Amino acid sequence: VSDPSPAAETVPGKRFFAEIYEQPLVLARLASSGAAFTAVADEIRGRGIRAIRMVGHGSSDNAASYGVYAFGLLAGLTAFRDSISLSVYFDADIDVSDSCVLALSQSGRTPDVVDYLERARRRGALTVAMTNDASSPLAEVTDVVLPLLAREEQAVAATKTYTAQVSALMLLAAHVGGRGEEHCEVLDETSELLREWLPRAEVEARSFAGHLEKVQRMLVVGRGAEFATAREIALKLLETCRMGADAMTATDLAHGPVAALDESFPVWAVAADDASLPMVIEAVARARRAHAPVLASGTAAVTLDGVAVAFEVPRAASPLHAPILSVVPGQLVAGALALARGLDPDHPDGLEKVTDVQ
Amino acid sequence: VSDPSPAAETVPGKRFFAEIYEQPLVLARLASSGAAFTAVADEIRGRGIRAIRMVGHGSSDNAASYGVYAFGLLAGLTAFRDSISLSVYFDADIDVSDSCVLALSQSGRTPDVVDYLERARRRGALTVAMTNDASSPLAEVTDVVLPLLAREEQAVAATKTYTAQVSALMLLAAHVGGRGEEHCEVLDETSELLREWLPRAEVEARSFAGHLEKVQRMLVVGRGAEFATAREIALKLLETCRMGADAMTATDLAHGPVAALDESFPVWAVAADDASLPMVIEAVARARRAHAPVLASGTAAVTLDGVAVAFEVPRAASPLHAPILSVVPGQLVAGALALARGLDPDHPDGLEKVTDVQ
Repeated sequence: VSDPSPAAETVPGKRFFAEIYEQPLVLARLASSGAAFTAVADEIRGRGIRAIRMVGHGSSDNAASYGVYAFGLLAGLTAFRDSISLSVYFDADIDVSDSCVLALSQSGRTPDVVDYLERARRRGALTVAMTNDASSPLAEVTDVVLPLLAREEQAVAATKTYTAQVSALMLLAAHVGGRGEEHCEVLDETSELLREWLPRAEVEARSFAGHLEKVQRMLVVGRGAEFATAREIALKLLETCRMGADAMTATDLAHGPVAALDESFPVWAVAADDASLPMVIEAVARARRAHAPVLASGTAAVTLDGVAVAFEVPRAASPLHAPILSVVPGQLVAGALALARGLDPDHPDGLEKVTDVQ
Repeated sequence: VSDPSPAAETVPGKRFFAEIYEQPLVLARLASSGAAFTAVADEIRGRGIRAIRMVGHGSSDNAASYGVYAFGLLAGLTAFRDSISLSVYFDADIDVSDSCVLALSQSGRTPDVVDYLERARRRGALTVAMTNDASSPLAEVTDVVLPLLAREEQAVAATKTYTAQVSALMLLAAHVGGRGEEHCEVLDETSELLREWLPRAEVEARSFAGHLEKVQRMLVVGRGAEFATAREIALKLLETCRMGADAMTATDLAHGPVAALDESFPVWAVAADDASLPMVIEAVARARRAHAPVLASGTAAVTLDGVAVAFEVPRAASPLHAPILSVVPGQLVAGALALARGLDPDHPDGLEKVTDVQ
């Protein structure tokens, strides 16, 4: 949609939007890389792995929230976001020999993720690095690398890396559960759905962003596999738009935070047509009773009552592919709102692409 | 500090502050109830439990963040906050027979927590309910009840239940690790430290709250066992003061959210004198570079450079007791700030004490 031009490098958001548009290609690449996933899945099954421990920061940690559902539903395996600091800084002595560690890091250079993985490997865990850089420090210390195939990400705020991580977690879980081939095919279709939808979605995002122009703080709610989406949308708004955006499950909204809502404190509901939809509907009703404006996105967004604006997301052929598409309104709205606020989503203040902080 | 009077029931914050002041008594009761913990710990060891799955919403889920460290460090056991919806709404078929489920619910009546526990019990998990109400629906369906001994909590925003949950998690982990008696004794000392400190802390909280008078959004950071504290402080501010407060680990601050900070977007750093302190110091430096005002609390608060105000917390005899004390500035500041804003911390808008939403 944006045209390359000699001044391209200096156009705010140029890289951010270009990377959003690369996502269908990245998904198609992953859909064609089933063999890499088969090998790791065989190892997970062969070793009798009982738990998947996922680690990462920021967007990678959000993708891990999705992994809980992918492994639980496709592979019948317990997966959880493990504590990095318990191992790395507090040196806890925990038996991880029945575990597979999935380290999520775009750059493969996040120091405490590398450290966590090394320690887990010494303690007998099967270690798998999901990274864009197969020659990174993380790749050097792991048993196996699963490349994200997203190529270098230049915008500081992650987009294509996030959807690649979500897709890779889904494909690995599907292969462990014996349904790898089926989900490679569905991912190819999801990629095509995204490619067709993106130009329309970009236009819709600009109008959706108009509802947030003066908003300084908001809550993003989702549940089930879409909790990851809510977390990632909140992070995009926070880092690119300086919005005080917090994510929570639709149920947790009722446990306290609903008290903070009012006319100036809106809620963005991620509403997918799945088993968690009744909880999202209930959260929306509570937010409305608190006079909070409600914005909605997702496959079930248009079915919600009383929302100010609904951003419909195309329906993927499998419910576990929905989060790959449903994060895209968040990416596009964050980009549009940042530009409207005079901010450059390519270079948020104070952020570097590789976070080397311990 | 507040005097009972005929009009007591109508004094805003009366119950909230009274329950904060009950905490030393609740901790002392728990410190004397070692036998209940010994029995459950024996069962956990006897069954060869490999993982502790914790579930709860709101403050209970924040306490579970602490449990990860308590079980990891005192018992060498993997503990994690399990997904309620994966089991309850998506009906995932996961083997939990090697797990102990800890269901955290003040009332024992949170429907999806009860449902989660019933399902886990049918699948062979050892189920333990930590609740204030030993005749609640949760207590009826569990293998074992560990009473929190906090008595009925009347203020909607939890205080004594949270510190009771943190203490109960610590005591159970200590008993599993064979150090129950030692930690019962330390908890008794922690209770006494809290009793002596509270009146001074209440005065200090009013002055600390003065720094937040006009603040609409902030980030609360902590790491390690104090990440739970950061989450609980953010939730108290959100529910009692209508603050857009979000918690994150000191490291995650650098992965995006630092870009949102400016002069009007402060950071509250929970700084304990433990292995995670360097990460908190680094987060504070980044926040300062973004021109965000920094407020600090915790045992190491006064050692931080460049903070606007530091709320020192007394040092407990064991580092794992620190979070019991370090949440108290958050409780007291939330109460003081709510009153200064004309809000009643006893009755936040739109909240009921028992959240029966699914």
